[in-house]
Amino acid sequence: MTTTLAPHPATRVRRHPERASYDRAAIDALLDAHWVCQIAFVHDQLPHVIPTAYWRDGDYVYIHGSNGSRMLNMLQDGDSCTNITLIDGMVLARSAFSHSVNYRSVNLYGRYQAVTDAVHKAEAFQKFFDVILPGRWPEVRPPNHKETAATTVLRLPIEQAVLKARSGGPKDDQEDLTRPCWAGVLPFSFHSGAAIAEPDAVGDLNLQADLRWRQRW
Amino acid sequence: MTTTLAPHPATRVRRHPERASYDRAAIDALLDAHWVCQIAFVHDQLPHVIPTAYWRDGDYVYIHGSNGSRMLNMLQDGDSCTNITLIDGMVLARSAFSHSVNYRSVNLYGRYQAVTDAVHKAEAFQKFFDVILPGRWPEVRPPNHKETAATTVLRLPIEQAVLKARSGGPKDDQEDLTRPCWAGVLPFSFHSGAAIAEPDAVGDLNLQADLRWRQRW
Repeated sequence: MTTTLAPHPATRVRRHPERASYDRAAIDALLDAHWVCQIAFVHDQLPHVIPTAYWRDGDYVYIHGSNGSRMLNMLQDGDSCTNITLIDGMVLARSAFSHSVNYRSVNLYGRYQAVTDAVHKAEAFQKFFDVILPGRWPEVRPPNHKETAATTVLRLPIEQAVLKARSGGPKDDQEDLTRPCWAGVLPFSFHSGAAIAEPDAVGDLNLQADLRWRQRW
Repeated sequence: MTTTLAPHPATRVRRHPERASYDRAAIDALLDAHWVCQIAFVHDQLPHVIPTAYWRDGDYVYIHGSNGSRMLNMLQDGDSCTNITLIDGMVLARSAFSHSVNYRSVNLYGRYQAVTDAVHKAEAFQKFFDVILPGRWPEVRPPNHKETAATTVLRLPIEQAVLKARSGGPKDDQEDLTRPCWAGVLPFSFHSGAAIAEPDAVGDLNLQADLRWRQRW
């Protein structure tokens, strides 16, 4: 099933609207390719932006943290903007002006909802591990009552969402193409490396988790 | 000279204040280790956050873009928060609750100023290349009058700024240390790979630029 999200004033792309997509499958694919977002909120009339881990479960993006987190408290009472960006490369043209960036970026708007139901909250913790560190949940000591009570879980429906992306090589003007200057893409990647064990660690990091974020060019 | 920035209501760290630093050298080091920031601003009472390239020059962070950019126009008239985050690793503990993230993150607050002086603007373009793609500026066709006029350059003084960082291994509770579960750090890195030339590119990407973002574990 292909779902296209309804447009919304907040998600209208103003610059390079041809780079925008409201396709849920494309949005979900990017959400599943990263695990850190940046969330903007307003406090005392000032915008703030703070990075945090997230995971997607179906039609929602989830985040969590301490009950004492200012951001988690603000997000339940106010508007927010959540950005997830993967930088794929610097685009190097023959002219300075035509240099660009290859990227995939999703913005999500709306109000976060608290996950307070005990079963839902327990499922959310497990899902976090299943998405971010697959295979690890059965190995770790699960959260106890006190830890669960001290943790706030929030979720945001994927409704006011837009993807913006650029890919491909430089687009120089015709008259610059003959300039004797290297042109192309300097690719970038964000990925994991070889796991570093604690001195007294037992065994190895399970293979699924170890390979989850090892994407390469 | 060691400079410590004066505290400011916006830059007071609420969660884990022991992870905060107001040391300019430490803040500058992080700013110089990345080239993409996320900027939050408020438009029509809604927070927005948009990624963009930046560079540091002395006591300022610079950004640029089209005169038609909503963000660049909003930033000259309103408050903003600029976040730069490098994710260094996932911290894998024996208990689910003690899992964490290693990161280095700077938040900068304040009002962006337009760089309108022609000489300053021309210097800013060159500085951008010298910082992000060293050695490339003499090779590319410099911006012409029309391109320069179509481009907005903004700068933000590094005054209301704070660094927050976590490093090191997991901090499990004593009673979890004997659990037969792997523990340690899964390191992450954001870096460049082998340059991909356009079919008709001349020569190679210069070595300085090619090596600028090749950090490895």
